[in-house]
Amino acid sequence: MSFAPLPTDVLDRARLAVGPGTAAAVAEDLADLTGRPVLAYDAEGRLTGADTAEDAPLVLVGAALPPALRGDPRVRWFHSVNAGVDALLDGGWPAGVLLTRTVGRMGERIGQYALAWVLADCQGVPGHLARTAARAWRREPSELASGQTALVYGTGHIGTAVARALRAAGVRTVGVGRGEHAPGGPFDERVTADEDGAWLGRARFVVDALPLTEATRDFFAGPRLCALRGATFLNVGRGGTVSLPALGRALAAGHVRAAVLDVLTDEPPAPDHPVWELPRTTLTSHSAGITAGTDVTDDFRAGWQALRAGRAPELAVRVGRGY
Amino acid sequence: MSFAPLPTDVLDRARLAVGPGTAAAVAEDLADLTGRPVLAYDAEGRLTGADTAEDAPLVLVGAALPPALRGDPRVRWFHSVNAGVDALLDGGWPAGVLLTRTVGRMGERIGQYALAWVLADCQGVPGHLARTAARAWRREPSELASGQTALVYGTGHIGTAVARALRAAGVRTVGVGRGEHAPGGPFDERVTADEDGAWLGRARFVVDALPLTEATRDFFAGPRLCALRGATFLNVGRGGTVSLPALGRALAAGHVRAAVLDVLTDEPPAPDHPVWELPRTTLTSHSAGITAGTDVTDDFRAGWQALRAGRAPELAVRVGRGY
Repeated sequence: MSFAPLPTDVLDRARLAVGPGTAAAVAEDLADLTGRPVLAYDAEGRLTGADTAEDAPLVLVGAALPPALRGDPRVRWFHSVNAGVDALLDGGWPAGVLLTRTVGRMGERIGQYALAWVLADCQGVPGHLARTAARAWRREPSELASGQTALVYGTGHIGTAVARALRAAGVRTVGVGRGEHAPGGPFDERVTADEDGAWLGRARFVVDALPLTEATRDFFAGPRLCALRGATFLNVGRGGTVSLPALGRALAAGHVRAAVLDVLTDEPPAPDHPVWELPRTTLTSHSAGITAGTDVTDDFRAGWQALRAGRAPELAVRVGRGY
Repeated sequence: MSFAPLPTDVLDRARLAVGPGTAAAVAEDLADLTGRPVLAYDAEGRLTGADTAEDAPLVLVGAALPPALRGDPRVRWFHSVNAGVDALLDGGWPAGVLLTRTVGRMGERIGQYALAWVLADCQGVPGHLARTAARAWRREPSELASGQTALVYGTGHIGTAVARALRAAGVRTVGVGRGEHAPGGPFDERVTADEDGAWLGRARFVVDALPLTEATRDFFAGPRLCALRGATFLNVGRGGTVSLPALGRALAAGHVRAAVLDVLTDEPPAPDHPVWELPRTTLTSHSAGITAGTDVTDDFRAGWQALRAGRAPELAVRVGRGY
């Protein structure tokens, strides 16, 4: 366990500070919620605003935790405005600091993203757009997504939301994960990563919703990608879970029909980055699950209320596992 | 009523003929089903194949009924390989000839088509494709389709299927139709065409799934289109139900945010047709509901079996109404 519920008296005394880039509306909502002025911290970890010299406990809300604050014993709780926290955990997480994250309606957003690209593929949306631009009229039969199979890697919050969205459109969903989650849910089948071999050749869609851990780095490499038989590949997880050279070879050989990549290890990729050369590949610029300001406030509020009630926040990160 | 069930002895004696462009596999399946050789008829209505001089009743399967066969008293049943039959009914339908149509999985196909373009719009698919081509990386927040409102005009087979697909993705669906259909179904609300005014300003999506009749010609013209407040407009019905000049003005003024047109009055449109000039408009070349050969065979079989059992085929067209 990476956290113990913070005692109420710590919360009572704590000052709140928001990191660089936080919207003013979010800071105002947090001030309303917590009943205190909200300070700011900058990229160097300097606090600005009222009472900066105080010794009171600190609660921070932001995207990054600057080095100067990593060792600061006043910091007791960091609420990430993002859902992905692997960058925060790089190099270890300070002991005793509660880490929570913002999920908001991200699952629903990423579910609709995945369904949009699955259907765009089946309905030939890119082709219709190109033909319209060229003033060309050509009837093109579409393909039904319903009845086809999607392998969804990662069966946590995001993978589950993706499967729910796809299944509502009639897609058969196979969840690939550790299997420690409750049965049922939106998966027609559940297998572990060691058991996916039987499904790879039958999948029309593969959705990568994996977190980045040592176990998932380059998870989609040659062996797995070359076992596909014309699947369309979506990555809504983490860029590091896919070997781009292997993906390029699988695209060239037709094992992968098309790819839609929301995430990359190098973001943004330079104009001469090889990812731009991948055939039949669309990059969506890490847009799939952009959280809104209300998502940050809502999820912080849930954590705040849980702590005041002596409970662990549901969105607390189990630091040792990385997500 | 445009039909009476054909007596079994008429079916027993009838010869079968398929029209121009019918796939060989379809003809073979029909021969298997009916237990007789399948003739062909050409665009001039000439029968070719065995026994062409016979006086036996005729059952025809095709896209069009040539003039020479329209007045032929031997023709007792025409099965359309398409769902839309307004072109067949132009100029009247010969009395006493049963007309059935092919629907197949067309509802499901058009439902997925509509959902694909709704989600493509919300997820900014065209923008991501363009930026990928330009090697540009830019985060773009997406919009959730769920929770937004779609007005679906036409509450028959196609409109119902569209609403079912959209609702499964969380879209609130308002069906606009005559109201003679059974309550329930995939519509959150049902109104008549006279009552849609209250909804036009609240709709994020408008789907035209209307048949073409005298009552629906130019149904979407200035008054209705200008009451929209930034809705995206899809036409999966008939081209003649929309005034293209009025649509152009509504697009220019922003009443219509974007348009996706599967059908036009003039198909294919000439390269200098004004429809190509419409801003933020995609043409999909009448591809939304292309029926497969198996759809034709399946729906003919259902009609054949119904007639042999003395029932009216479910896909019989009520000729007076036009669909």
